[in-house]
Amino acid sequence: MNQKICDRLAALRAVMKANGVDWYMVPTADFHNSEYVDAYFKVREYLCNFSGSNGTLLVGQKEAGLWTDGRYFIQAEKELAGTGVTLYRMQEEGVPEKEDFLAQKMEEGQTLGFDGRVVDTKFGQKLEKKLKEKKIRFVYDKDLADQVWTDRPLLPCHPVTVLDEAICGKTAGEKLSMLRKKLEEKEVSGHFLSKLDDLMWLLNIRGSDVECNPVALSYAFVTGEECHYFVQEQAVTDSLREHAAKYGITLHPYGEPLSYLENGAVCGKVLCDPGQVSYAFYKTIAGHAQIVDGANPTELMKAIKNPVELAHMQEVFIKDSAALCKFIYWIKTNIGKIPMTELSAAQHLDHLRSEVEGYLDLSFPTISAYRANAAMMHYEATPESHAKLAQEGMLLVDSGGQYLGGTTDVTRTIVLGPVTDEERRHFTAVAMGMLQLTDAKFLYGCTGRNLDILARQPMWDQNMDYKCGTGHGVGYILNVHEGPQGLRWKYTEGMKEAVLEAGMDVTNEPGVYIEGRYGIRTENVMVVRNGVKNGDGQFMYFETLTFAPIDLDAIDVSLMQPKDIERLNRYHAQVYEKIAPYLTEEEAAWLSEATRKIG
Amino acid sequence: MNQKICDRLAALRAVMKANGVDWYMVPTADFHNSEYVDAYFKVREYLCNFSGSNGTLLVGQKEAGLWTDGRYFIQAEKELAGTGVTLYRMQEEGVPEKEDFLAQKMEEGQTLGFDGRVVDTKFGQKLEKKLKEKKIRFVYDKDLADQVWTDRPLLPCHPVTVLDEAICGKTAGEKLSMLRKKLEEKEVSGHFLSKLDDLMWLLNIRGSDVECNPVALSYAFVTGEECHYFVQEQAVTDSLREHAAKYGITLHPYGEPLSYLENGAVCGKVLCDPGQVSYAFYKTIAGHAQIVDGANPTELMKAIKNPVELAHMQEVFIKDSAALCKFIYWIKTNIGKIPMTELSAAQHLDHLRSEVEGYLDLSFPTISAYRANAAMMHYEATPESHAKLAQEGMLLVDSGGQYLGGTTDVTRTIVLGPVTDEERRHFTAVAMGMLQLTDAKFLYGCTGRNLDILARQPMWDQNMDYKCGTGHGVGYILNVHEGPQGLRWKYTEGMKEAVLEAGMDVTNEPGVYIEGRYGIRTENVMVVRNGVKNGDGQFMYFETLTFAPIDLDAIDVSLMQPKDIERLNRYHAQVYEKIAPYLTEEEAAWLSEATRKIG
Repeated sequence: MNQKICDRLAALRAVMKANGVDWYMVPTADFHNSEYVDAYFKVREYLCNFSGSNGTLLVGQKEAGLWTDGRYFIQAEKELAGTGVTLYRMQEEGVPEKEDFLAQKMEEGQTLGFDGRVVDTKFGQKLEKKLKEKKIRFVYDKDLADQVWTDRPLLPCHPVTVLDEAICGKTAGEKLSMLRKKLEEKEVSGHFLSKLDDLMWLLNIRGSDVECNPVALSYAFVTGEECHYFVQEQAVTDSLREHAAKYGITLHPYGEPLSYLENGAVCGKVLCDPGQVSYAFYKTIAGHAQIVDGANPTELMKAIKNPVELAHMQEVFIKDSAALCKFIYWIKTNIGKIPMTELSAAQHLDHLRSEVEGYLDLSFPTISAYRANAAMMHYEATPESHAKLAQEGMLLVDSGGQYLGGTTDVTRTIVLGPVTDEERRHFTAVAMGMLQLTDAKFLYGCTGRNLDILARQPMWDQNMDYKCGTGHGVGYILNVHEGPQGLRWKYTEGMKEAVLEAGMDVTNEPGVYIEGRYGIRTENVMVVRNGVKNGDGQFMYFETLTFAPIDLDAIDVSLMQPKDIERLNRYHAQVYEKIAPYLTEEEAAWLSEATRKIG
Repeated sequence: MNQKICDRLAALRAVMKANGVDWYMVPTADFHNSEYVDAYFKVREYLCNFSGSNGTLLVGQKEAGLWTDGRYFIQAEKELAGTGVTLYRMQEEGVPEKEDFLAQKMEEGQTLGFDGRVVDTKFGQKLEKKLKEKKIRFVYDKDLADQVWTDRPLLPCHPVTVLDEAICGKTAGEKLSMLRKKLEEKEVSGHFLSKLDDLMWLLNIRGSDVECNPVALSYAFVTGEECHYFVQEQAVTDSLREHAAKYGITLHPYGEPLSYLENGAVCGKVLCDPGQVSYAFYKTIAGHAQIVDGANPTELMKAIKNPVELAHMQEVFIKDSAALCKFIYWIKTNIGKIPMTELSAAQHLDHLRSEVEGYLDLSFPTISAYRANAAMMHYEATPESHAKLAQEGMLLVDSGGQYLGGTTDVTRTIVLGPVTDEERRHFTAVAMGMLQLTDAKFLYGCTGRNLDILARQPMWDQNMDYKCGTGHGVGYILNVHEGPQGLRWKYTEGMKEAVLEAGMDVTNEPGVYIEGRYGIRTENVMVVRNGVKNGDGQFMYFETLTFAPIDLDAIDVSLMQPKDIERLNRYHAQVYEKIAPYLTEEEAAWLSEATRKIG
């Protein structure tokens, strides 16, 4: 029995009783739907011991359940042992969805509690619908766990930095004007924004309150005349104060937006993205104003990088690519000579990156996956569990950095020793797909759904698929994953697609994943550019930002068309030309060989 | 002055006055939104002299206007001369849309008249919206023109034939059950169907009331128990009577559905496709029942050809291809030796087709377009205006037939003499695109938007586009154009796409069109088939039905990748193997050479 957890749940149940709450729900999110969740927000782990990245805990007076997905079934079983919490394996046959479970378990007129700041609006609305018949009351304005978690970590809080216009290309004032123009077009009086990367972009500021995401916990309410910015007082620097004064931004404490919104600040029509604003805020605004549902206008603005941003990115990507090339040289030269593991390799790469001028942070924890581990899309080497590297097979390394001048994301699969013909066939297919998409010419109006097949074709031709999209947008000194652009093929009725606009960046990362054996992925970042415009329309093309060799040790030229060979040779010539100046003589000599002309 | 037209308009205005109608609208459609319109329905031409295929006439007491599109500006100007009717050039700057024109011209409380049976529901609803503010009354239950047009032709009326189950693969009874199951799923009590090809498919019958479309003017109202079929009494044959009795189909006169629907036949929820059912019917049903908007379930059922249909199609397409091959042989052998024109060439091809076993009709009027004429997508050679053929340049021939066993559609661009390097480059690109799409392997779930780029890529690579889709569905002994499947690339928000299902057929027809100089199109019909199914999903591929040589006289091998050459050689080997048995010795010898291995 896990006495610690049992005690915590008992304490929670007492608080629930005192607050008239029959069931309490604890999802896994911060107040901003961020990709990574800080220690402060790990309430679910505190209450049930399950530490995976995805899970929702439902606690009643007599029972409790934890819902998680297939990645975590084994881990959850282990961690929940002795806690009395039942594991609900999501998507398995006969396992109820959370909302159906509640609709069945709860009695008419009972009360469901949750911290409405960490529940997304769409799920909250789904619960409302499912529990309407039983007249369930919602209490969502209290974080009951806070009364139980006595030694809770503090909210992450780091100083907010202000970026120079020379880095951003546009001032915060210009961006606020762009946003206000959109608000006018949408005929709304205000806009509530809680998506952190959109906030950072809008105000030309950065923080470091979320792992690998250079963002500060904050909110904003923007009207035609005003901009109210809610941020932790200890995070406010002199430069932020100055910046705020310059652009008419009023600073408020981070904890206050709810009371601010309640006290008559919102009225008329307010623009809100129910996919981004959490339930508590959405409901509060809806109580005082007419909500206009819609994507944050900042999302599309942020996605289209401006010329200043693009110029910085070109430079930063070359430096980042050079660090990766140094790493590949190092690993290929030293494999079999010095002991290496997935972890030590990743650490070496992270170290090389940290030496790059303008380096701020990693853009995500480096994925270093050897052989069969690389077939697992969510593999993470840990100090407790990681593989030793040897002179055989392939190592997949997916990594990136945050720099003052851009955010990078690159994957190379590196040959450490002998590979099979099948591995070469699959590696070659991935390279051909990646390069065919890189070379695409397309008319303005295309979305990712039109182009995805160019990367996927060599795999589909072999009756294989990779079960993920081909690419995603990348932030500028911001989150490594951003929208709305993307490269995917699947159709669902009513889906919204983003037209590829000049200036958008997108990853190009096809792969082959053979369970239990190996995984291959080759990933570059590209920028959409305007090409020829004629009577047939505006043609577009991709410019590649990433320059690192595609391992010729796993390329089978006999499987390539002359056009494929020409594409690879052309890319490799650019790699050498752009990266060699950043290398030592030995490294450059190796790169010259690694990018040699084939065919 | 065109006295005849002026008199007709004066007569119409008198009838309008007598009926209290201030403006009268005459679009161009039959009661079923058919692709071709019979003489009976050419009211707009009768009233204003404009004979193009697209145009709407608006007549007020003091003025009249004709709206048509860019294809017809010159023709309309000529034909409207002296009629007093103003030409409104659609899409040109400053030219109002019809609905805006009416909203501006009409005075509050005035009356707009039109025959609601020939106006589509969506346009009718748009008018309602635009004219609401001015409180315009709609009179749509009278065909005022009928009182003016004294020598109006009769409604087309041909005997209805019943198809054998051996031809259809499923009985009308089985199809009615399939439809009824869908009605149950949609929880509707009835379904009103006025789309003629859907009706023919459902009841295993055919007619010939629309040019090239083997359909009979008719309607049906289907409920869980009943099927009411409205058809012209003179079209009813003994076999139809027998067929109707066998499958519980009640026959009614064609003119009666409106009064039938009004007299309490519809109630509860009724399924109706506002894109297919005309305004008068939609409004009548809406007056008595709750309409559920939705595509006719028959559309998707009809699109997926069953194994019996597919077997007949394979056979019919080969015979049809053989007729085309005979034609190509004839034209290439005789060009420069006997006088030929676009028209005489088309007539010869039509004659060859008419000799094929099971031939019923053309599936559309043969397009025979020489050199610059082929650059015009809607070109039609007429006895008054057509080009002579000579031993130079290319002739584009797009043609197809209706057979007892399938409907065909095929385009070949035939080299009649010397062609330029540019023409060869473009011809080769078209062939490569067509063959790359043919060779596609893709996962179940793809729609035309995922695949279109495979055909378009060689053109986009040269900064060229063809301004139309790559392909459309083809009926089975039915309309040459049918949905919902198609191959197109453009995205519009909220669009509905059809997943490519095994058994669907689709054309593959990329092209290059150089205004004033030439046009190239190569078109085959393909069927979607299930391929390998594995852990990654159900893979799909295309099987080609059409077998005719792609003119090697315009192929530039140096522009092709080995894969492109292999695809062309593989296709040509099949063409020879399948078609030679149907040819004379001379023709077969020529085909052998025309399908020779290249590269």
